[in-house]
Amino acid sequence: MTTPQTRLSTPVTDTLNRHVSIRHYTDQPIPDEMLHSIIEAARRGAPTSSNLQTYSLVVVRDPDTKQKLAELAGGQKHVAACPVFIAAVADLSRVAHAAAMHGVPLGENLEMTLYATVDAALVGMTLCTAAESFGLGTVMIGGMRNKPQEVAQLLGLPPRAYVVYGICLGYPLPERVPSQKARLPHEVVVHYERYEAGDLSAHIAAYDAELAAHYRAEGRNTPDAAWSSVVANNFSKPPRPHLRAALERMGMRFGSGEEGTE
Amino acid sequence: MTTPQTRLSTPVTDTLNRHVSIRHYTDQPIPDEMLHSIIEAARRGAPTSSNLQTYSLVVVRDPDTKQKLAELAGGQKHVAACPVFIAAVADLSRVAHAAAMHGVPLGENLEMTLYATVDAALVGMTLCTAAESFGLGTVMIGGMRNKPQEVAQLLGLPPRAYVVYGICLGYPLPERVPSQKARLPHEVVVHYERYEAGDLSAHIAAYDAELAAHYRAEGRNTPDAAWSSVVANNFSKPPRPHLRAALERMGMRFGSGEEGTE
Repeated sequence: MTTPQTRLSTPVTDTLNRHVSIRHYTDQPIPDEMLHSIIEAARRGAPTSSNLQTYSLVVVRDPDTKQKLAELAGGQKHVAACPVFIAAVADLSRVAHAAAMHGVPLGENLEMTLYATVDAALVGMTLCTAAESFGLGTVMIGGMRNKPQEVAQLLGLPPRAYVVYGICLGYPLPERVPSQKARLPHEVVVHYERYEAGDLSAHIAAYDAELAAHYRAEGRNTPDAAWSSVVANNFSKPPRPHLRAALERMGMRFGSGEEGTE
Repeated sequence: MTTPQTRLSTPVTDTLNRHVSIRHYTDQPIPDEMLHSIIEAARRGAPTSSNLQTYSLVVVRDPDTKQKLAELAGGQKHVAACPVFIAAVADLSRVAHAAAMHGVPLGENLEMTLYATVDAALVGMTLCTAAESFGLGTVMIGGMRNKPQEVAQLLGLPPRAYVVYGICLGYPLPERVPSQKARLPHEVVVHYERYEAGDLSAHIAAYDAELAAHYRAEGRNTPDAAWSSVVANNFSKPPRPHLRAALERMGMRFGSGEEGTE
């Protein structure tokens, strides 16, 4: 399709179009009514495959726990500073319990792990969108996967559960709200009828230049290849190599699930 | 926290609170301007870890392609019937290309696969919320993982990419809009400070009864244990046992990424 000239909007797209990750907060607390309304709208608005609801949320306001989580995430101060932190947990413990109530085991494999991971990801996303519609700022914390077992222990998670990511919530500190940086262009990411990579090197070079200009306008140092060289530098070694073994120790499965039945 | 009596709302929470999955559509087409506005709001509103943007979207309107996708999803007629189908693709091909532009390989392991899977899940979620705010109906199609290689081939995906789920979009057929069914109760899913499973058997039994009453009120047959027995029946065998091998053949990695470096 040719790119339409007109943008249509709703209050939802307005909220989405304003999104930036917020890591600095005022002291203003989040009212219980607001938090509860956000969580329930998030749970209602996120679909869940086969109605399994294989996720849980752990809401943390205790300063000691937030401080420990900040350290486990590699020293992310905003995790300690935010008034409310919510862990989005992939959680197969409930469906395992449900199956056991009928005397059968839960089938456990990569697909079940994906069910739970995607369920948690979806509900965390609706939670952020709902929170931002109330004027709160959010940032997702993938650093919860730095020390998955320690995080699980701190939050008291049962076996077959892990924190996919955390969410910091708080009123944005106005002077520390970052400007939006460009996403990769539409034509690189969105395909019509069939995936067509096109001239990916040229597209990436153009995005590198756009992002470099953005960072320099903010007075930040940046390489010319502001996106691709960061990808190359930070991800040429496998990130979080401990994750696979840690999640397996926590009861998550990544195989076909048929290993024992051949 | 004690459950607040007051629910607060915004247009976003209103949209989320109205959500039901929609599988029957009118003939009304989705205007290009609307579709483009939805996609761009979705891309802006969904965060992406380390700005990697490891997802792609494939927008399908061709009837033949939708028909084939419907069959690959196990005969889901709504995939063929919806005016617009969008595949949410976990896509590491772009970052692999970016790394190669700087002469290094991409580190590939479970964590990178999770990056891409979660990125795709998040942007698909904001896409659905944005679409519903325009009055469209949505349903996510995990059945895209039934035949992941065939789906990838049909959509022309590069290596290191797979469809996490699809999304059907269309104007809801009013007479086929289902009523909302209850989610698991707040206290079962949402925990404060620490995860406390509580009396899970009692909670599940209560939810079983609530769901059974809902189905019977709709004139549908249901076992008494309307949730737990379905979980037990459908998930005591590992679902989609082919998935692990198929995704590996497609270039997704699930190991530590350090296998070759010891």
